[in-house]
Amino acid sequence: MDLARSPLAVPFPELPAIEGVTLRVARARYKNWDRCDLTLVELAPDTSVAGLFTKSACASSEVELGREQVKLGQARALVVNAGNSNAFTGFRGREAVEQIMAQVAGALDCEPSDVFVSSTGVIGVPLPKDKARAGIDAALEAQPCGWRNATDAIGTTDTFAKGASATAILGETRVELAGIIKGSGMIAPDMATMLGYVFTDAAVEPVFLQEMLDKANAATFSCITVDGDTSTSDTVLAFATGKAGNAPLAGWDDAGADAFYAALLEVCRTLAQLVVRDGEGAQKFIEIAVSGAESDESARRVGLAIANSPLVKTAIAGGDANWGRVVMAVGKAGEPADRDRLSIGFGGTWAAKDGQPLPDYEEGPVAQHLAGQEIRMDVDLGIGEGCAAVWTCDLTHGYISINADYRS
Amino acid sequence: MDLARSPLAVPFPELPAIEGVTLRVARARYKNWDRCDLTLVELAPDTSVAGLFTKSACASSEVELGREQVKLGQARALVVNAGNSNAFTGFRGREAVEQIMAQVAGALDCEPSDVFVSSTGVIGVPLPKDKARAGIDAALEAQPCGWRNATDAIGTTDTFAKGASATAILGETRVELAGIIKGSGMIAPDMATMLGYVFTDAAVEPVFLQEMLDKANAATFSCITVDGDTSTSDTVLAFATGKAGNAPLAGWDDAGADAFYAALLEVCRTLAQLVVRDGEGAQKFIEIAVSGAESDESARRVGLAIANSPLVKTAIAGGDANWGRVVMAVGKAGEPADRDRLSIGFGGTWAAKDGQPLPDYEEGPVAQHLAGQEIRMDVDLGIGEGCAAVWTCDLTHGYISINADYRS
Repeated sequence: MDLARSPLAVPFPELPAIEGVTLRVARARYKNWDRCDLTLVELAPDTSVAGLFTKSACASSEVELGREQVKLGQARALVVNAGNSNAFTGFRGREAVEQIMAQVAGALDCEPSDVFVSSTGVIGVPLPKDKARAGIDAALEAQPCGWRNATDAIGTTDTFAKGASATAILGETRVELAGIIKGSGMIAPDMATMLGYVFTDAAVEPVFLQEMLDKANAATFSCITVDGDTSTSDTVLAFATGKAGNAPLAGWDDAGADAFYAALLEVCRTLAQLVVRDGEGAQKFIEIAVSGAESDESARRVGLAIANSPLVKTAIAGGDANWGRVVMAVGKAGEPADRDRLSIGFGGTWAAKDGQPLPDYEEGPVAQHLAGQEIRMDVDLGIGEGCAAVWTCDLTHGYISINADYRS
Repeated sequence: MDLARSPLAVPFPELPAIEGVTLRVARARYKNWDRCDLTLVELAPDTSVAGLFTKSACASSEVELGREQVKLGQARALVVNAGNSNAFTGFRGREAVEQIMAQVAGALDCEPSDVFVSSTGVIGVPLPKDKARAGIDAALEAQPCGWRNATDAIGTTDTFAKGASATAILGETRVELAGIIKGSGMIAPDMATMLGYVFTDAAVEPVFLQEMLDKANAATFSCITVDGDTSTSDTVLAFATGKAGNAPLAGWDDAGADAFYAALLEVCRTLAQLVVRDGEGAQKFIEIAVSGAESDESARRVGLAIANSPLVKTAIAGGDANWGRVVMAVGKAGEPADRDRLSIGFGGTWAAKDGQPLPDYEEGPVAQHLAGQEIRMDVDLGIGEGCAAVWTCDLTHGYISINADYRS
């Protein structure tokens, strides 16, 4: 099936070249298509790496190996296969990943553990080793390409290419960050897999890079949901080549650490929101701002309970200010809440305050807001200081069509 | 909107009269409709009661009061209001419930705490006290009616009436159980509320009745899901009038306790499954049998993760044996699992075993099974002895139409 471009799509931005990062793409033909589906990113020696992986108990070999590799802190290459997730393929799947790692390590004269591999696509079909080998060979000989080509090559059922960039000044040194991501389109039996990569020329110690990535993740990737279904392949990796020449960042007290974190956070937030904008069947982008919770983490959980509620998502799809369904979702979240202190608003207008509908509530401005594509929901629990923002999309006939009407 | 009768509907069964239980219905006109929407059940003095209530942190006053009332163990009446859930209505909502309790207590010469009240329908609109008072008056003067009329009167957007019965022999005494339930249809801004009631002429001590109801619930009502959205009003009550004359059951060692529990379990399971059969937009009834889990509770959680996955539900809607999505749902459940021991089957045919697709898997019989209305999925985790069955329905365009296309 051909998927129409998401109505929430944004143009692919100009991304800066990152010194120490060389992109190449090739046709491995993992599926019966004529497009680049293998991406090889060569990284300068001594590049630091940090990573986040799905918590799925059924993760792919790529994820299992990646979890171990990031502990070593060094990377020389990244390979992304599109069209086959290689998940649930047992030892044969693992052999394919190890073959790729060895092949690239041989060509770049590094350790196999310096080669990171991600795969996205069909579950249950071992990644064909012969196609992978030929694809790597072709990529090694290819001319370097730009961000847009690489972003297209890692995509599967994405309806638009997604990237983001930022800069930071570390002392006297200007550093660049560029990130790309794929995710949230799917055709049966493929799965929603989110693969995201952030590259920077800054010098950052691996342990601190991981610490900043974990912190940024908590406020970005961990705050989005399309359908609440966690992939077996979700991966976010951050690579720091150090080519900018700054004094390596090793902790929060270092000059420029806060500036770098702010830039990293901005890139992660943009990438995360872009995934939601390509959510299957999405017609509306929804920001849910939760305040007054017992803690930030509690606020995030409440926000995700609302964002994952099919009744809330269909209400928004229908332009219906159905705050009763929001009450329901808060109630089922399993977090501290007090019905009689709960307030709910849409687009800056409160519909209910302190556990009761507002007597002078005017539906007009709210209906106008909900008719748009950018929806804002405010939920105040009234019991503490915790707050969080969560992003999701609406649940529409498009979602059903994509996932039920077409056979694999 | 008029909802079409579910394709999974079954005829309303013949339910036995239960001695000590008198049903009456009346028109309170909580909504702008011409149908009975108030049900008054008079119970013989010394009727035992047990109850289950939503765990929602935003529960209605009916639920808050009911939680306290069941601790007293006695009931003389049940009032069910349809068309208004009275949830999220603050002190005005509570006043309405207390008025109903006092009015019925006055008429039946009992304590207000002996009068149980349930309400289902719109959230956020206080139950109108004048309509409730007039409705109770009318019900008190009405002729007794049968189960079918009472079941119709408690329904809201249900597309068919749901009831179940069973018998048990306690020593020399035959006892009858009859149950009715409403749930799972909805129109915006109403909410999916499930209200279920089981009546028996057996004599059962309240504490033991509660124990048996808790146990039956764990294997029945707690094992169904339509959309994972927990209502603010969910309630199940069991009433035992004692009119059969058996020696009161007080514990598992009493003669007939096992037989009574088996009958109670049967009624609860049938009622629970009937709710799924009326799930919004449902075209297929799905039983998910999970085995090999670390514990029964772990198996239930894995089953519910599968049953609540929109990707699994849409795959079944599309007749797609997409076991990759089942792998995903098992992986995200947060329960102990081992990818390399996981097996998945449909309709008695294994598609994957021990973490890998079966090489000789034949899709023909599975496709034929999935084309039907009654779907069976087997999931074996291969790590323990825990097992559970979970029931749900598919996710279709009908669900979106019901919840998004029509405005409140």
